[in-house]
Amino acid sequence: MVPSISDILRETVLGPGPKPIKPTAIHPLDGLSVAEVERACEIAKNNRPDQHIWIKLCTLREPPKALLAPYLEAERRGEEPTRPPREVDILFFILETRDLVEVIVDLDAEREVKSFVVKTHHAPLDRVELNEAKAAMLESPEFAQVVKELAIPAEIIVPQGWPYGADDAVDHPRRIFYILYTRDPKTNHPDSNHYAFPLPVTISWDIWGKKVTSVDWCYTGGEKDSFVKGTGPKQNPTAGCQPGEILPELRTNKVRDDLKPLHVTQPEGVSFKVTGQLLEWQKWRFRLGFNYREGPVLHDVTYDGRPIFYRISLSEMHVPYADPRPLLNMRQVFDFGDVGLGRSANSLENGCDCLGVMHYMDTAEVDPSGNGRLVKNVVCIHEQDNGLLWKHTNAPTGRAAVTRQRLLVLQTIITVGNYDYIFAWHFDQAGAIHLESRATGILSTGPIDLGKKSIYGTVVSPGVLGTSHQHFINIRIDPSIDGHKNTVVQEDVVRLPYSEENSSGIGFAVESTPITKSGFADADPLNGRSFKIINPNVINPISMTPVSYKLVPHPSQLRLAHPDALITSRAPFTQHHIWVTKYADDEVFCAGQYTNQSYGKAGGVKEWTERGDNVENEDLVLWHTFGLTHVPRVEDFPVMPVETHTITLKPCNFFTENPAIDVPLSNQSFNKSTTVDTGSVEANPCCAGNGL
Amino acid sequence: MVPSISDILRETVLGPGPKPIKPTAIHPLDGLSVAEVERACEIAKNNRPDQHIWIKLCTLREPPKALLAPYLEAERRGEEPTRPPREVDILFFILETRDLVEVIVDLDAEREVKSFVVKTHHAPLDRVELNEAKAAMLESPEFAQVVKELAIPAEIIVPQGWPYGADDAVDHPRRIFYILYTRDPKTNHPDSNHYAFPLPVTISWDIWGKKVTSVDWCYTGGEKDSFVKGTGPKQNPTAGCQPGEILPELRTNKVRDDLKPLHVTQPEGVSFKVTGQLLEWQKWRFRLGFNYREGPVLHDVTYDGRPIFYRISLSEMHVPYADPRPLLNMRQVFDFGDVGLGRSANSLENGCDCLGVMHYMDTAEVDPSGNGRLVKNVVCIHEQDNGLLWKHTNAPTGRAAVTRQRLLVLQTIITVGNYDYIFAWHFDQAGAIHLESRATGILSTGPIDLGKKSIYGTVVSPGVLGTSHQHFINIRIDPSIDGHKNTVVQEDVVRLPYSEENSSGIGFAVESTPITKSGFADADPLNGRSFKIINPNVINPISMTPVSYKLVPHPSQLRLAHPDALITSRAPFTQHHIWVTKYADDEVFCAGQYTNQSYGKAGGVKEWTERGDNVENEDLVLWHTFGLTHVPRVEDFPVMPVETHTITLKPCNFFTENPAIDVPLSNQSFNKSTTVDTGSVEANPCCAGNGL
Repeated sequence: MVPSISDILRETVLGPGPKPIKPTAIHPLDGLSVAEVERACEIAKNNRPDQHIWIKLCTLREPPKALLAPYLEAERRGEEPTRPPREVDILFFILETRDLVEVIVDLDAEREVKSFVVKTHHAPLDRVELNEAKAAMLESPEFAQVVKELAIPAEIIVPQGWPYGADDAVDHPRRIFYILYTRDPKTNHPDSNHYAFPLPVTISWDIWGKKVTSVDWCYTGGEKDSFVKGTGPKQNPTAGCQPGEILPELRTNKVRDDLKPLHVTQPEGVSFKVTGQLLEWQKWRFRLGFNYREGPVLHDVTYDGRPIFYRISLSEMHVPYADPRPLLNMRQVFDFGDVGLGRSANSLENGCDCLGVMHYMDTAEVDPSGNGRLVKNVVCIHEQDNGLLWKHTNAPTGRAAVTRQRLLVLQTIITVGNYDYIFAWHFDQAGAIHLESRATGILSTGPIDLGKKSIYGTVVSPGVLGTSHQHFINIRIDPSIDGHKNTVVQEDVVRLPYSEENSSGIGFAVESTPITKSGFADADPLNGRSFKIINPNVINPISMTPVSYKLVPHPSQLRLAHPDALITSRAPFTQHHIWVTKYADDEVFCAGQYTNQSYGKAGGVKEWTERGDNVENEDLVLWHTFGLTHVPRVEDFPVMPVETHTITLKPCNFFTENPAIDVPLSNQSFNKSTTVDTGSVEANPCCAGNGL
Repeated sequence: MVPSISDILRETVLGPGPKPIKPTAIHPLDGLSVAEVERACEIAKNNRPDQHIWIKLCTLREPPKALLAPYLEAERRGEEPTRPPREVDILFFILETRDLVEVIVDLDAEREVKSFVVKTHHAPLDRVELNEAKAAMLESPEFAQVVKELAIPAEIIVPQGWPYGADDAVDHPRRIFYILYTRDPKTNHPDSNHYAFPLPVTISWDIWGKKVTSVDWCYTGGEKDSFVKGTGPKQNPTAGCQPGEILPELRTNKVRDDLKPLHVTQPEGVSFKVTGQLLEWQKWRFRLGFNYREGPVLHDVTYDGRPIFYRISLSEMHVPYADPRPLLNMRQVFDFGDVGLGRSANSLENGCDCLGVMHYMDTAEVDPSGNGRLVKNVVCIHEQDNGLLWKHTNAPTGRAAVTRQRLLVLQTIITVGNYDYIFAWHFDQAGAIHLESRATGILSTGPIDLGKKSIYGTVVSPGVLGTSHQHFINIRIDPSIDGHKNTVVQEDVVRLPYSEENSSGIGFAVESTPITKSGFADADPLNGRSFKIINPNVINPISMTPVSYKLVPHPSQLRLAHPDALITSRAPFTQHHIWVTKYADDEVFCAGQYTNQSYGKAGGVKEWTERGDNVENEDLVLWHTFGLTHVPRVEDFPVMPVETHTITLKPCNFFTENPAIDVPLSNQSFNKSTTVDTGSVEANPCCAGNGL
């Protein structure tokens, strides 16, 4: 086999000898350093001196809970426990055999402790692989033929490579398909928004075979003739399209000039403390992990010393499209499994992505040759004012007590092809954790004949169909509500029957249903449904009920594809909002470890629930699937204003009073607001009454 | 009849002669000035020289749409149209006859143009009336007897007066009922949180008759004996209660001392312009009204010159409780109809309620004697940063384009008894309007025997039951989407059947159902349901579909009381999320004009829909009911961290592209962020690339 670009890169860049690491001061949950990444890969490569390997992933293998949980507890007690072995998961291809191999390297022992070949699954895609494939596809005779038939210059064409969604339940060769676009032909500017010029053709590519497997001309019809090919012009098919530029320098209309600056300052510094990856803020204490796949991970979350969550992360995001016409129906991406949240993270910048006083966290990534690289600023950490936290005016005296709400915000922004997502974990002062997700970026577009409409989406620019789609995000919540033995309880609020006591018919009450066996449940907002994670062994002395944290599931629309459709079997986690499993190490990804080109055999949360494990008063995991059905608006093009959703985990009879009761009352000497009229900072009577 | 305190006040404070106003420069939607309030009342009083009147309300009567709409349109065209007559609605009692009278005064003509007696309805409550009633009740022999039986000092007792919810379909005398509490007996501090010491007795009061009508001892039992009275001690019944103070000076634990200041500054001033009550910001233009009942009202809302909404306001808030046991089952308040959002508004303060650079709006209120008073700062207007607005990184080049989101925020905070609410209208730069509502304040509490739990709520402090309840808010949306002829369309997203075209079973599409006759509909998030207000006469040239604004209804739980319960007939608007009526002047309050002591005959949106009017391509009104079922948490006591809900009206194929595409890219020279590590304001590459 011919060595690839990265083979050469690996041979030339990587030094010769081993680089030992002494990780004694490293916390078990610290992300791998660049040196650790390189050392782990070195060990794996040294074990295979006669083979060329293409490294896909190199990431911290978190210690098993049986070791890590006692470690964290001892640490919180102020002890200095012995660190569990520092292990690394590496995934690579052996180029000679095309075997996909998982190994576990023990960095302390400097050796591989496990190695096995992965069968019938495909590794995720990586940037180098995608770039090489694209370069090769652009050199193919089939591409040249397409260019000729389109009668447009090859140099304006932008192919967007996609994970190949399954069209049958067969283990296909490793492949990609390309949707072709052009830059604005008038400018061919490298940052021209090509999604405004979709070409009516897709090209499929065999990655290992380095060959085109098919050229598929799109169905470009409308409501009346959607399944008839080629009614649009084949030559210069985007002649009727118009530029849809995002960058001001490429647009003809001018930007607004009436927005005045707004600055956020913290003259006395920030209120949070960062020690390595340990964060402490307003009674919260947790470790912020970060990996290639889930991005930021919250570990060992406690409030005022009480454990609440062992681990919270984003488990998967799946985005299937509505248009069933080949080949655009292959848009069925698993963004975290096929690519990775962490490895799609933007390096954030002061003043652009982040306003105020920032702390940034970096991560180490690996290239196919095993070289590590520090990616800067993948998480920005800062405080935000969020309006009022609580207020009450005592009517008899008129005395007001008011507090403002401060948030600790951990923000990560990712780019996955056309779309961009902003994920932010918000910690508040009243014991709640919120996950805010914002979808932005550019719609995935396809061609449509000029003047036609489609039931599969919205015409967002002439000749451009913004295809309807669904976004499914799954959040994995591993609770430790005052300990690891917890139960998930479904709670509805129900009307009470008429009775002597309820003669007026106004009575209502909570109906509780504990989930005793691993399984699933759905949101039901019209019945006021919530899910509590209780610790049945710890009773709140005030309410006399078990301590708990509550999740009100986001009642988003579930999977629209047919239940027996192949796409549904690839992501059964999209069929229910709530899943409860018994905890198991390595059960982390709800659509399975290997989603790329999966065809219903990848495992995942549905399979794990089918074990029927006891999950009552047990070490359990709660998974919540939410998202949105996105029927594009014209307003979502050429770039989409953020579509925001928030999931909240809040204490429910966990504390013995409002945990934010001790937040200082707001006052003007602290907050220094001004009025437009005077511009001066004034004292005022309300604030005078508020002590700080 | 004996003159009341306010009768005397009116006689002594009010001057003799008329005070003419020349309102020629006044806009038809400007709120009444203090002088106008007093002049209007003077006219009404002068017409009744032989009678004593008690003024309940005096508010601007907005001109009928037939006059106002053309006026506003002409004004927007730059013309100087003739102002419609300046009319005032006054509501008052004639003390001699106890008649409740509505009059309309024409301030231009200086005369009453209409006057009629209101039959079988009760006026809302006012502060003077409540204070007088409470003072008299505290002097009653029945109260003295209660004090004696409780064996506690009278001076620690705090009676909380409530509108008397209906217990039968009869027109009762005007009345109030009191839930009795005590301050912390150890301090008897005037701002002690009395909701931590509920007494097991309520007192009902006849307002006109000035007498106690009943003394009712509460049911204080728990799950096993909830409908058996008096198992708790009658003497000193709160002996087992504990203080639940809010104010730091009354609490024993100390406030947090680790929160650092966070300041928001706008060194070049704000980006909005206020001209009287006209607000202009980022292509938005609207008039901000304010009245006693709805509080802030958005009039004549346009974006970039295109009309979108004629009028948006909060129509009603209704809060029924779950506990059917007399007399705490009478908690069925209509906060806006029984009392008034506007007249419950706090005077907001820099640095406490509001952070940053503020503009405030005042309002004029009336007292029973017809004296006007300026209430300062009932709305604060300011800008907020709201994170990112849109971002995309162009993968082929790595070039990122990112904008931050600025909001214009109009905030009003109200106190209604124990509860406080924060309502904020948010205007964004992408053409959307959001209503954010935050519930805070103190739970309505009742007594429960120590050590018992109840199905009707949560024990939030020893001996204190935080009763479960529902909050229903109704927002009234009078659209003018590119004109007054609009249609509401219900849209679901539905799975498509298998077919040759949809052979993979992944296809889905929108199912549209126009609402052609006045009626109702419900939220259905699991079917992706939204409601579009379309203008069928204006077609978006890009999407080729009617222009529209979209409401995704908040899928909150509807009325839990039985459909045939009396309480349901008082507020049928709580039975459905969406109501559509044909526009009619004076159809503004969804539970009817007179909610206080209503018993199913108050009219309102249900009655109006029953006319079966055509609402397709018609001047229509869309009403949305939303809220929450609130099962209290211990964490909600002694004061509740905000519970936040947001309703959004967003453009949907109204514009021809993302309306925020012209927002300048974010950059560091504009936003001046800092990093914790260095504290310095740095330039950076991303921002360097962003022009402003």
